[in-house]
Amino acid sequence: MLKDQQYITERIRSLKSFLCIGLDPDVDKLPEVYKNSSAPVLNFCADVVDNSFEKAVAYKINIAFFESLGPDGWRQLEELVAMIPKECFIIADAKRADIGNTSAQYAKYYFERLQVDALTLHPYMGIDSLEPFLNYKNKWSVILALTSNPGSADFEKIEIKENELLFERVIQKFNSTLYADQIMYVVGATHPDYMSKIRTQAPNNFLLIPGVGEQGGDLDLTVHSLRNEREGILINVSRKILFPKGLESKIGDIKNAIQSYSDQMSKYF
Amino acid sequence: MLKDQQYITERIRSLKSFLCIGLDPDVDKLPEVYKNSSAPVLNFCADVVDNSFEKAVAYKINIAFFESLGPDGWRQLEELVAMIPKECFIIADAKRADIGNTSAQYAKYYFERLQVDALTLHPYMGIDSLEPFLNYKNKWSVILALTSNPGSADFEKIEIKENELLFERVIQKFNSTLYADQIMYVVGATHPDYMSKIRTQAPNNFLLIPGVGEQGGDLDLTVHSLRNEREGILINVSRKILFPKGLESKIGDIKNAIQSYSDQMSKYF
Repeated sequence: MLKDQQYITERIRSLKSFLCIGLDPDVDKLPEVYKNSSAPVLNFCADVVDNSFEKAVAYKINIAFFESLGPDGWRQLEELVAMIPKECFIIADAKRADIGNTSAQYAKYYFERLQVDALTLHPYMGIDSLEPFLNYKNKWSVILALTSNPGSADFEKIEIKENELLFERVIQKFNSTLYADQIMYVVGATHPDYMSKIRTQAPNNFLLIPGVGEQGGDLDLTVHSLRNEREGILINVSRKILFPKGLESKIGDIKNAIQSYSDQMSKYF
Repeated sequence: MLKDQQYITERIRSLKSFLCIGLDPDVDKLPEVYKNSSAPVLNFCADVVDNSFEKAVAYKINIAFFESLGPDGWRQLEELVAMIPKECFIIADAKRADIGNTSAQYAKYYFERLQVDALTLHPYMGIDSLEPFLNYKNKWSVILALTSNPGSADFEKIEIKENELLFERVIQKFNSTLYADQIMYVVGATHPDYMSKIRTQAPNNFLLIPGVGEQGGDLDLTVHSLRNEREGILINVSRKILFPKGLESKIGDIKNAIQSYSDQMSKYF
């Protein structure tokens, strides 16, 4: 199924939500009932999906939490992706990128075998390093621009010339390619001062926005500054949904957290 | 076994070589005998290792070529790492990096479960994104500085102020931390004009150098410009060793290619 810009826009409007649920299943934090099962991270995520797929525009699967478990983690990941209803938009948050022939191997895995809709990518190595991903016409590349962590000040925010920061050059360079319509950017909600300028520089791109939730970004400000006429934003919440009461949060608490975010977002429609 | 700077220096001197063999086992290029086996990439790489471990200072395992095969690729990867003789230095070329709690998951996998000595990392997200790797005191972080691909011109070589390029800031920032002794940098052999300046900025760090071989970097120039009093360089060759005659290169051809690089390098000792 082709999930183009129009598809995502319509899904946001029909669900009255920008919610992207981040699946970061830290095995050490799971309730015992999952820990003791044969597929802890799969079973936990599957329960979250079963209780949220009619409210989540998208899922962002944090690959590290599966990779850390070795081959069995990858088996659980593949089963998880297969069980997510096809109408949801699935982002593999893997943050890959390498030289061309190597990026092609990653692209083959995520887009052909795993069949996710989108993949997060590091821009540092330049445009040719991401072309193997961008060459998949019906898939999305989600490129890191201004991330939500404090370390974004180290390089991303370096002023490379007057009134131009490095992450702005990243956006400008990739949007100058023929692939702009397949590109989303990661922009953290923890940078309120930069939001209006970012939307000016990337008027049409969808933005994947972490940093609301655990990291404290403001939802209202984010929506008002970054939404565009395509809706244009996917707001990711991970820990505040999966572990709303800290360690071993119960599925009831998770459902309540999802409902709370859904309610907060519905008021924008 | 702790493989610190002194260990690598001594291994280079005793083998009279800087050779790092890049294990990029593209399954489509393998001879039929491997393709038809139950573990094609493992069996191929194992044969390469069996025929080279007394000549290779290090192995750089390109994770993408295992990841692309799904859970079974990871199983083969884990068996491969387990069979490499412990005296070799093992680099997982995975090019990871994410916010702290996610990087911690990657670090746990590569350093605790897979037990490689080093991991390649993207610097874009800043110092805090790599601290979970750097916190492993007996492991190496191999940070991308100036990569060998043409796209290195897009961001890595941006002049951020007079006489300072972005990749130079990356080196300066990470070398200003308390972790400098555990950091290597990736510097492509395809940038002869930058080599002497890089060595001035990173006088003590080991450098992992791709770009000799298939990408055409000059071995002589690389050694003369980047070697330091610790020896200080690992020169990676992947395709020119694994596939010296193109598709389906035989193990005899591979042995000859390894011997040829060993001979070329021994003249520097």
